[in-house]
Amino acid sequence: MLNPAIKHYLDDHRERHLNQLCEFLRFASDANNNPEACSQCAKWLVAHLEHLGLTAQRLPTGGQDVVFAQSEIDPAKPTLLIYGHYDVQPPDPLDEWLSEPFDPTVRDGNLYARGSSDDKGQLFVYLMAIEAWQAVAGELPVNIKVFVEGEEEIGSPTLEAFIADHLNLLAADAVAISDSAFFAPDVPALPTGLRGLTYVQIDLEGPAVDLHSGIYGGIVANPLNVLVDIVAAMRSTDGKVTIPGFYDDVIPVSDEELASWRALPFDESRLASDVGLESLGGGEAGLEPLLRRWGRPTLDVHGIVGGYVGPGAKTVIPARASAKISMRLVAHQNPEAIVAAIHQFVADRTPPGIRSAVQDFSSGRPVLLNTDGWAIQAGKAALTEAFGMEVAWVRYGASVPVTEVFQRLMGLDTVMLGFGLPDDALHSPNEKFALKQLYTGAHAAAVFLGELATRAPKDA
Amino acid sequence: MLNPAIKHYLDDHRERHLNQLCEFLRFASDANNNPEACSQCAKWLVAHLEHLGLTAQRLPTGGQDVVFAQSEIDPAKPTLLIYGHYDVQPPDPLDEWLSEPFDPTVRDGNLYARGSSDDKGQLFVYLMAIEAWQAVAGELPVNIKVFVEGEEEIGSPTLEAFIADHLNLLAADAVAISDSAFFAPDVPALPTGLRGLTYVQIDLEGPAVDLHSGIYGGIVANPLNVLVDIVAAMRSTDGKVTIPGFYDDVIPVSDEELASWRALPFDESRLASDVGLESLGGGEAGLEPLLRRWGRPTLDVHGIVGGYVGPGAKTVIPARASAKISMRLVAHQNPEAIVAAIHQFVADRTPPGIRSAVQDFSSGRPVLLNTDGWAIQAGKAALTEAFGMEVAWVRYGASVPVTEVFQRLMGLDTVMLGFGLPDDALHSPNEKFALKQLYTGAHAAAVFLGELATRAPKDA
Repeated sequence: MLNPAIKHYLDDHRERHLNQLCEFLRFASDANNNPEACSQCAKWLVAHLEHLGLTAQRLPTGGQDVVFAQSEIDPAKPTLLIYGHYDVQPPDPLDEWLSEPFDPTVRDGNLYARGSSDDKGQLFVYLMAIEAWQAVAGELPVNIKVFVEGEEEIGSPTLEAFIADHLNLLAADAVAISDSAFFAPDVPALPTGLRGLTYVQIDLEGPAVDLHSGIYGGIVANPLNVLVDIVAAMRSTDGKVTIPGFYDDVIPVSDEELASWRALPFDESRLASDVGLESLGGGEAGLEPLLRRWGRPTLDVHGIVGGYVGPGAKTVIPARASAKISMRLVAHQNPEAIVAAIHQFVADRTPPGIRSAVQDFSSGRPVLLNTDGWAIQAGKAALTEAFGMEVAWVRYGASVPVTEVFQRLMGLDTVMLGFGLPDDALHSPNEKFALKQLYTGAHAAAVFLGELATRAPKDA
Repeated sequence: MLNPAIKHYLDDHRERHLNQLCEFLRFASDANNNPEACSQCAKWLVAHLEHLGLTAQRLPTGGQDVVFAQSEIDPAKPTLLIYGHYDVQPPDPLDEWLSEPFDPTVRDGNLYARGSSDDKGQLFVYLMAIEAWQAVAGELPVNIKVFVEGEEEIGSPTLEAFIADHLNLLAADAVAISDSAFFAPDVPALPTGLRGLTYVQIDLEGPAVDLHSGIYGGIVANPLNVLVDIVAAMRSTDGKVTIPGFYDDVIPVSDEELASWRALPFDESRLASDVGLESLGGGEAGLEPLLRRWGRPTLDVHGIVGGYVGPGAKTVIPARASAKISMRLVAHQNPEAIVAAIHQFVADRTPPGIRSAVQDFSSGRPVLLNTDGWAIQAGKAALTEAFGMEVAWVRYGASVPVTEVFQRLMGLDTVMLGFGLPDDALHSPNEKFALKQLYTGAHAAAVFLGELATRAPKDA
């Protein structure tokens, strides 16, 4: 149980906290398009962390700076590493926003701004809890390190190298990643697994120039014909991936976990209608949607380029064609082995008259989190106490690559304590963060810090 | 045998004829981009035909005017309809031309200009022969109608309706279509068949907006996944089209015709290297190239649009995807029946969560020409006499839709007397017409007119 005075402190300072978060949100910190705003935003964040009494600094990465801050109150106590990111997605399309993306606006109990939920608001929840603990209890219950990157939305190109180079600086007993969401408005959720990813581009080249299909049709291999053959051969008609060895390392979802998913308030037809469909589809035939989304790998074609794409008809045999394809992976599939199998698969199916190549764009390993860990159990207790709701164990269909990097390089006990809601419109116009999630989230974060101190193993 | 004086007349007037053809070629008569040049070109052509003693006029079509001219010398004699087109392909890319496309230039025995071979030069061959006959013999050996369209390179959108509305004006005993080429520089060729065409676009729609493949991968049908499945299913791995009923009406190429193709000087590896390939490919496994090109139907994908096509990776499930596909058809495949089968094929393979539609862009029936016809035999005799070479019976992989329209609407005996060479660079930069083909072609056309008079059946 949290000291009630901490909760009262948070309640008493809501207006100031909201104003401070709005300051944070006014930086258009889009790493690709506005590095200057990123730099100003990092500077603001350092100042705010120093204001909270932490030692804070910007550290170079080769790209946008990382912000790092810490407060060591007692080496005998456990240390929590808090991860977030201060960069945001581009705000386009601008004309679909009801208020300016970098002029935070409250409407109907929600704070609208780019980055409000992803991820400035969710990071700020912790900063509110840190402030409240220090103001009320005089000191934090655990040692804290805050690690905020500035390139998450552009694929964290420098993150893994930065972590590998700063293992001592970042050393901790557990990590909290706050960049996720509730399962539903009344269902706080803790992810126990994240899918990984393998993303490739297949490039085929045929004749030196585009050719007339009347003269060359039937005597020249058509790169687009071959491309659809190869890509279609990667999946069976029942939605299984047919690349040899693809499923070899898949760990089946346990009956117990599957039963817990079946108990979730999942409305298949509502989800379908939200995206303009009469029914869901895709994935493997005969499997239920949450299993297909969380517990099974997929193959999706993301783009095909080739030939004539203007209006009407042109009878051209294109000189080249390309497809972008990714596979979502589940534990313990190995992205490197699968990429190698894709190279072989494409080479085996490249006929005479066609040259093929495969580019590897990105890979992320799937992650499973141990639900028995002391940190994740502290997170569960905090969400339950603050929100007064039962917490669901879920998984994520998408990747949060930093999770896997922390696990692999540092072996940290990980908890993904997310305060977003499913309709926060991440990456879309009118992104928002519900004020209830902000204020009750800060309460939960405060409980979480206390629970960590209580539950930490002796050797932590 | 042609009156030798006619041949001498042609030899004596080469320089003037070349200059007149250059006048014709200076009009940039690109129907889409330069209707004013088309209009000026048609005016010039009418004046030139009147100068030859024909009654000539421009006739409206709804698009670019048709030029029509005639000379009736004796109703008891046969009437030849000569078809050509005065419009040309756009000259792009301009910077690859060694001389200006509309400033005709002679180099190394070739006349370089847009339209020199396709089709102004080939039409002009007839006008030279008409002039020579009249100058030397006093009158033409047959009645002549000249029918020159101005929209061939944009798909002849008004041609069929014009012919249907002017059956009496165009009435003739035979038609000569001069818009083709020799098989090789020393092999004059007469086509006995042309492939037809069915061109469709398949449009698939999935979710209302592009979706994140981490969150929706496996639970939403991906239009690009489904598109490659459907398109790949249209062909077997050995290159056969698998649309039900597709081959039902195909007439096999006779052993005799196939044997004649095998006797042609066809250099497979030369053709491959001309288009930048180590070897030919495509089409049905186990069949020889000329059979695949001329005697068998094909399916080619001309373009696919869908999803993310920029650099790098984006994990999007696209809201929609489209493919442009055509099938080259051989006698006696029926384009309408095949389009209907495609609609059914796509509908049968459209899974829940996807809406599909098929657009029909264009259709052309395949054509077989009777090699025993008196006009085609007159053409064969003319090519043999003028060029001193043996004439090959060939087919065309591409369509010349007017051929099928004349056959279907007028039942005309047809001969495709082509004077181009395979390397004339039609539709490409540096299009040329060999001066030898121009001068000897005019000789052949003069022989052809005489042979028609000799060979016409009594009731023609």
